[in-house]
Amino acid sequence: MRSSPEITLPVRLDRSGTDPLPAQLAGRLRELVTADVLAPGDTLPSTRALAVHLGVSRGTVLAAYDQLLAEGYLSAAAGRSTVVNPQLRRVHPHPPRAHRPLPPEPTPAYDLRPGRPWAEEVTGPAWRTAWRQASAAPVGGPVPVLGLPALRSAWSEHLRRMRAVVRDPAQIAVTGGGREGFALVLLARAGARPLRVAVEEPGYPSLRRVPARFGATVVPLPVDEHGLRVADLPGGRAAPDVLLVTPSHQYPLGGSLPVDRRQALLEWARRNHVLIVEDDYDSELRYTSQPLPALAALDDPVEGNVALLGTLSKTLTPALGMGFLALPATLVPAVAAARHDLGQPVGAVAQQAIAHYLAAGALRLHTQRMRNRYRRRRAQVTAALADTPGVRVYPMDGGLHAVVQTRRPEAEVVAALAAAGVLVSPLSEYWSGAGQRQGIVFGFGALTERELAEAMSLVAPEVGLNRL
Amino acid sequence: MRSSPEITLPVRLDRSGTDPLPAQLAGRLRELVTADVLAPGDTLPSTRALAVHLGVSRGTVLAAYDQLLAEGYLSAAAGRSTVVNPQLRRVHPHPPRAHRPLPPEPTPAYDLRPGRPWAEEVTGPAWRTAWRQASAAPVGGPVPVLGLPALRSAWSEHLRRMRAVVRDPAQIAVTGGGREGFALVLLARAGARPLRVAVEEPGYPSLRRVPARFGATVVPLPVDEHGLRVADLPGGRAAPDVLLVTPSHQYPLGGSLPVDRRQALLEWARRNHVLIVEDDYDSELRYTSQPLPALAALDDPVEGNVALLGTLSKTLTPALGMGFLALPATLVPAVAAARHDLGQPVGAVAQQAIAHYLAAGALRLHTQRMRNRYRRRRAQVTAALADTPGVRVYPMDGGLHAVVQTRRPEAEVVAALAAAGVLVSPLSEYWSGAGQRQGIVFGFGALTERELAEAMSLVAPEVGLNRL
Repeated sequence: MRSSPEITLPVRLDRSGTDPLPAQLAGRLRELVTADVLAPGDTLPSTRALAVHLGVSRGTVLAAYDQLLAEGYLSAAAGRSTVVNPQLRRVHPHPPRAHRPLPPEPTPAYDLRPGRPWAEEVTGPAWRTAWRQASAAPVGGPVPVLGLPALRSAWSEHLRRMRAVVRDPAQIAVTGGGREGFALVLLARAGARPLRVAVEEPGYPSLRRVPARFGATVVPLPVDEHGLRVADLPGGRAAPDVLLVTPSHQYPLGGSLPVDRRQALLEWARRNHVLIVEDDYDSELRYTSQPLPALAALDDPVEGNVALLGTLSKTLTPALGMGFLALPATLVPAVAAARHDLGQPVGAVAQQAIAHYLAAGALRLHTQRMRNRYRRRRAQVTAALADTPGVRVYPMDGGLHAVVQTRRPEAEVVAALAAAGVLVSPLSEYWSGAGQRQGIVFGFGALTERELAEAMSLVAPEVGLNRL
Repeated sequence: MRSSPEITLPVRLDRSGTDPLPAQLAGRLRELVTADVLAPGDTLPSTRALAVHLGVSRGTVLAAYDQLLAEGYLSAAAGRSTVVNPQLRRVHPHPPRAHRPLPPEPTPAYDLRPGRPWAEEVTGPAWRTAWRQASAAPVGGPVPVLGLPALRSAWSEHLRRMRAVVRDPAQIAVTGGGREGFALVLLARAGARPLRVAVEEPGYPSLRRVPARFGATVVPLPVDEHGLRVADLPGGRAAPDVLLVTPSHQYPLGGSLPVDRRQALLEWARRNHVLIVEDDYDSELRYTSQPLPALAALDDPVEGNVALLGTLSKTLTPALGMGFLALPATLVPAVAAARHDLGQPVGAVAQQAIAHYLAAGALRLHTQRMRNRYRRRRAQVTAALADTPGVRVYPMDGGLHAVVQTRRPEAEVVAALAAAGVLVSPLSEYWSGAGQRQGIVFGFGALTERELAEAMSLVAPEVGLNRL
């Protein structure tokens, strides 16, 4: 037992605080017990002594002790001192520590990792107005599981105008971004046995990790320069349950699935009862010609097989964490049930803000500006690599990234660039198995003209044959 | 083949639009093919005729046709008319339909379903200021997987002040609400075999559905009036992987786990390597006395077994879809890896807004006001049921809901109240198996004094013995 706890008790009460004094005192004493400053069996000051010490009424101390007696922290027998409950086992000592600030993210000179759009023009007047309107609106009970009606209607209209896809607002589900939407569809489709989920090879590593997290088997399917090789799709018992595909702009190689392959793909999906998840991540950014309508535009909107996965990550910013699913009508109940069980992670204010932003036409205007911007950046990349021997630059009809196949081993290129302060992704990472090509994938969306020029002056010499 | 497609083509171009005319024309023709208005083999107008018809240059029509030829929608042989590609299989006809508005949610006269706080005072000046500041901030690359540092620091500070839990900001993960956070922890903990997840019986049905969605086995464990019966916890091979528990305010029965049970629970978890998920959903709303510190406060912050699940659903509004996890340091890497794979569903603007709101002390002030409000509502409920024979009203030391055990069969009570326009939840729903009690659970948080008085004047006669 420690000596004289009466004197050393480190208790301070805040008379200007909102909590009543007995509650403050009880809370502080509880902390001292929890933190092992007061140990089981330790004697507490008498109520009178502590009241004098703290300059409060004895009733205040009595109330605090009573509370802690009721909670089992303290114990007292008639006529004896109040003690810390001797039955209270000692727990690990864990005194409060000063907060360590989170370590800052390292900032490379040129972050060319793919998938980052130019976001500096996002926060314009239309953006601020949308959020101001949204934050002034009442926030009542839970948000409807598939999203606010206004936002679902806005996405429905967006799809019709931009992607030639006609879907009722009731067929739209608001998501917390592409991966969250993919996860939702997978959970809606899950059954007794693990799902088999086919993905493109090469493909987007980020989305490929989602089914693996849910215990699904991931089956890579080959692509060529036009996208998924539809003629080679496995049928019958070898068919997957779900196929993730990027028909508009194959990621990362850039092909656009021709219309005959699209229709064969839909026919295959119908025959084999495969759910196609169309990752429509950046089709609005195509700048050399109009994009094909989405695959979903060819599908039956009621009984069809295509769930279109939309996101604002590329057209606006990945920091928003927002997207949507456009579903065949027959799939809506299963997705709503999954959402009901797991909750809608996108809050009402964000949903209202984006509904305002879309309804005001601000996304279309922003996309138009960005398309022009990215077209100029692409020309810069093409020019910078034009005289570099021994590299293959994949066609860039849109989007935010370039794929450069190198003869020089990619690990060397990536490391040399990192040493020069330029972060890029290795091309081989987009393959899960064999057949990998060597090269780099880099984004050119998030840089100014000048930054990109500087970065390319570092990239071009490293990827060229002269460094072999 | 249809006659005279030249004349009937329903094409209108928008000269004031942002898209160039050839792109508009190509898009419109593509839609007509997709919608089966133009079928494979149909002849298209000559470029000259269509140019005259539309009042555009022939070059515009040529460019559109070229685009569609390249895409495979059209085909042309030298010297012949351009036709819709005969190889293009017909797809299901699915003409665009007028959008059906989403059906409005039915609005009962008195929605007393539990879990709805009083949200009308949320959207005050502090709220609007927080969102205005957040929407003015730049939104760049992806949000850090566990959340923005400012918000994680604010939650860390909140936990320390309100719940006596000392956790570094690095141990906080931002979540899209309680269920989203629970799902994240389960995915972080998942291994080769399905998880066994123990829950309280009775317990919160909403959270109980989450592990079932992920293929986990859900094991109900009995509670008594003090909460989980810790002495009866299964050990050894029978121990679950994860235990979901509400120590501060057992849901729905209201018990608060005494400190000796808390310490025995932690000891059991350590011995059996169980991850305890502490659902701390409304402890800040306790209004009869200070709440006990969170269970996590007794746990080792580094090597411990408790993940605290926080949410703003009860203290602010469920419409926000926002919460957090406070994790033992050793669990952070697994949670970060799961988040890395699945994405952070809470956007940067919402995170910044709540960080501002917390840092301004606005949540504490709001909680204080709500505590007073709910205390008055509780008194109203108690008074309204005081003279009702044959009912047991469970103690309400805090929170937003009341539990009333009835002798009258609950199905009758719920149906009679629904007929009178009062929505409540049946008590038996909180059990997954045997041992159900009959009664009703209803919320009193979201009503005005007058509304609650009116509702209680309908509830009291229906639950009483006089209706048996």
